[in-house]
Amino acid sequence: MEHLGARLTRISPGCVHIELPSRPEVTQQHGYFHAGATSAIADSAGGYAGFTLFGPDSSVLTVEYKINLLAPAEGDYLEAVGTVLKAGRTLTVCQLEVFAVEGDRRTLVATGQQTLIQIEARAER
Amino acid sequence: MEHLGARLTRISPGCVHIELPSRPEVTQQHGYFHAGATSAIADSAGGYAGFTLFGPDSSVLTVEYKINLLAPAEGDYLEAVGTVLKAGRTLTVCQLEVFAVEGDRRTLVATGQQTLIQIEARAER
Amino acid sequence: MEHLGARLTRISPGCVHIELPSRPEVTQQHGYFHAGATSAIADSAGGYAGFTLFGPDSSVLTVEYKINLLAPAEGDYLEAVGTVLKAGRTLTVCQLEVFAVEGDRRTLVATGQQTLIQIEARAER
Amino acid sequence: MEHLGARLTRISPGCVHIELPSRPEVTQQHGYFHAGATSAIADSAGGYAGFTLFGPDSSVLTVEYKINLLAPAEGDYLEAVGTVLKAGRTLTVCQLEVFAVEGDRRTLVATGQQTLIQIEARAER
Repeated sequence: MEHLGARLTRISPGCVHIELPSRPEVTQQHGYFHAGATSAIADSAGGYAGFTLFGPDSSVLTVEYKINLLAPAEGDYLEAVGTVLKAGRTLTVCQLEVFAVEGDRRTLVATGQQTLIQIEARAER
Repeated sequence: MEHLGARLTRISPGCVHIELPSRPEVTQQHGYFHAGATSAIADSAGGYAGFTLFGPDSSVLTVEYKINLLAPAEGDYLEAVGTVLKAGRTLTVCQLEVFAVEGDRRTLVATGQQTLIQIEARAER
Repeated sequence: MEHLGARLTRISPGCVHIELPSRPEVTQQHGYFHAGATSAIADSAGGYAGFTLFGPDSSVLTVEYKINLLAPAEGDYLEAVGTVLKAGRTLTVCQLEVFAVEGDRRTLVATGQQTLIQIEARAER
Repeated sequence: MEHLGARLTRISPGCVHIELPSRPEVTQQHGYFHAGATSAIADSAGGYAGFTLFGPDSSVLTVEYKINLLAPAEGDYLEAVGTVLKAGRTLTVCQLEVFAVEGDRRTLVATGQQTLIQIEARAER
């Protein structure tokens, strides 16, 4: 995430926001954010959202996610929001949203759903 | 894709391979490839696979994809394979696979499914 | 849908509710609703939600959906809610939720995301 | 499944086939199979495929699945094929395919991907 230039901007129990400013490394020739960057911050936001609810000795892995790319991702920055929909002992399900922000305008550019697994130290998928 | 260091290694009608060598920019502290890099080359391989079947004036957009991360992505390089399962006039569905290759060993590390839309010049989603 | 015993209980632009009462045909030996029934009403709720926004000569087909089954679906009835997240000229994306209702208690038992395609009379996918 | 009129026609380790004959209860006015029936047998085929690889005291639950409906499902019967792609201690991932069979003709009408969880006796998701 850091290598993309993204950063955590809000952390609350079960909800995390990540912002990714527009930079040549994450945009195409037309100035749109790469789908890969959009997906990566969505996946990370969900993973961190799950992590806020897990125990201190746990780590988290993405089992799978599904994402719909709704509109060209263009703007000053992207904001990904990961929200826990259901937290379980083993599996946790998150909603993923990505907004493109340009000045005052905030457009939903991607929406997804993700399954996480909580891994105890030494445990295995 | 290029900014990740990935390159197309095989192109045939309805099937495209992409390789991504292990590099610090796309791996974590433990040497595993980032999930974001794995997903990005899977999505690209599917998009290019669809593109091989489209007309000269068309472009292609990812409508959505779903990916399962099956195992840690560790090795000399990742190989993503995108294969068209059903090509339609408007929508095309691809299978996505990502293998981690280390020496002779090839491990399936991610599997997915993707929907593409063919866009005529000037058309719109 | 009718053959399952389900019925539309709320229709507004971009949002449709469907209820499915508990009956032996749609439940298992333990009284849980079948996953197939849960998924079917979720898919239908999304399809009808999209349909509320389409033109009079259009029909709607499900391109794909993804659903997470979060908890055992047990109760007096299931309520599926389909909500349009993004309506496009060709493609529409919906959020799908299914709640199990038992007396006063309402539990989210499934959550999903769906892509629809609007089909003009005589058109084709 | 039985209430739909479906039956297991092939069981091997990691792969299960289910057939669903055309009947008024599972088809629409035009003779197409309901998407709900198509999805239900796909989900069941994957679940049973996973189950063939699990221990005697285990049961299996669908965590999530994603399915693309590729073509109208029309024919004498549907055949769903569930194939394990990756079997894990906790989670198992399956490929789902549904074919419509009419005489000699076999058409892929749906393709999907599914995550299963193996549940020990008394354990919980």
